[in-house]
Amino acid sequence: MKALAEIQVVPIGVGVSVRKEVKRAHELLVESGLEVQLHSYGTNVEGELGQIFRAVETIHETLHREGTARIMTSIKVGTRTDKAPSLAGKLF
Amino acid sequence: MKALAEIQVVPIGVGVSVRKEVKRAHELLVESGLEVQLHSYGTNVEGELGQIFRAVETIHETLHREGTARIMTSIKVGTRTDKAPSLAGKLF
Amino acid sequence: MKALAEIQVVPIGVGVSVRKEVKRAHELLVESGLEVQLHSYGTNVEGELGQIFRAVETIHETLHREGTARIMTSIKVGTRTDKAPSLAGKLF
Amino acid sequence: MKALAEIQVVPIGVGVSVRKEVKRAHELLVESGLEVQLHSYGTNVEGELGQIFRAVETIHETLHREGTARIMTSIKVGTRTDKAPSLAGKLF
Repeated sequence: MKALAEIQVVPIGVGVSVRKEVKRAHELLVESGLEVQLHSYGTNVEGELGQIFRAVETIHETLHREGTARIMTSIKVGTRTDKAPSLAGKLF
Repeated sequence: MKALAEIQVVPIGVGVSVRKEVKRAHELLVESGLEVQLHSYGTNVEGELGQIFRAVETIHETLHREGTARIMTSIKVGTRTDKAPSLAGKLF
Repeated sequence: MKALAEIQVVPIGVGVSVRKEVKRAHELLVESGLEVQLHSYGTNVEGELGQIFRAVETIHETLHREGTARIMTSIKVGTRTDKAPSLAGKLF
Repeated sequence: MKALAEIQVVPIGVGVSVRKEVKRAHELLVESGLEVQLHSYGTNVEGELGQIFRAVETIHETLHREGTARIMTSIKVGTRTDKAPSLAGKLF
């Protein structure tokens, strides 16, 4: 099922600056093969719902392995059956 | 990987009342085998990260099949390596 | 305007455990006079929309003054004109 | 207090397409005087925390007056004392 989503990864316990981990999470989304659009409050993605969720699992596994003790991720995900969703189609 | 999450399902296009679809989504979470706690802004769940995401996929597939044209779901998910997370442990 | 909301405060840079600051934020919500319901992923509140937002401002001001350098708060807020909203009315 | 925020307005009960109301909400943010950046999952804004919340109140009041019976808004808001926050500074 095709889906659009917004993914925001917040590492906890790495200090006041979270840039390194947030950048790493974005890189992993780029590598996932999903269409991605970075903005100041997360990364918007377009792809199969299952692929999106697997990408989030990969982010958690990778960041934990690389030393982040705690991760809080916020995901907004939308699907619809009346037409094919696209990130571009949500702009005006 | 053990995770805690909050899942809020918002059906779009079913009218001002969304109770029937939200209740159905909660039932599907109960049936998923995850530990669940209903509150006024969603359902908190405890379980494996992959199992949580599969439960959300099942909700989208089921609600679409049962007639909801558009679904927006908000998910907050947390994992940590310093100790075993639990929903109960987040209260004070 | 009467509103229902969910407020989740995430202090950044205080370490892996955020319990002290999250508990403090909840106390400030209790003191605000809003009706509050704590759960594992935030505090649900019922009250005037302006009062809810002022309570969130007070949380940010207070936690910063007490030493938290960075705060990320997630708010979901709902209003409706077809009937009087209540936290209890959202359960089933 | 300077803040960054993401605001996503979801009108309920207006049908499967929510474009008209979402566009109206974005226009009201532009008119608020906040710095705004539209993306596919909301509008990112930069400004005083109180000004941001007043803009959200104006959106709810205006959309209700113009006929939307129910509105669910998701807000992520961040403040920090270690440096001046900016939307541009969150990109990499």
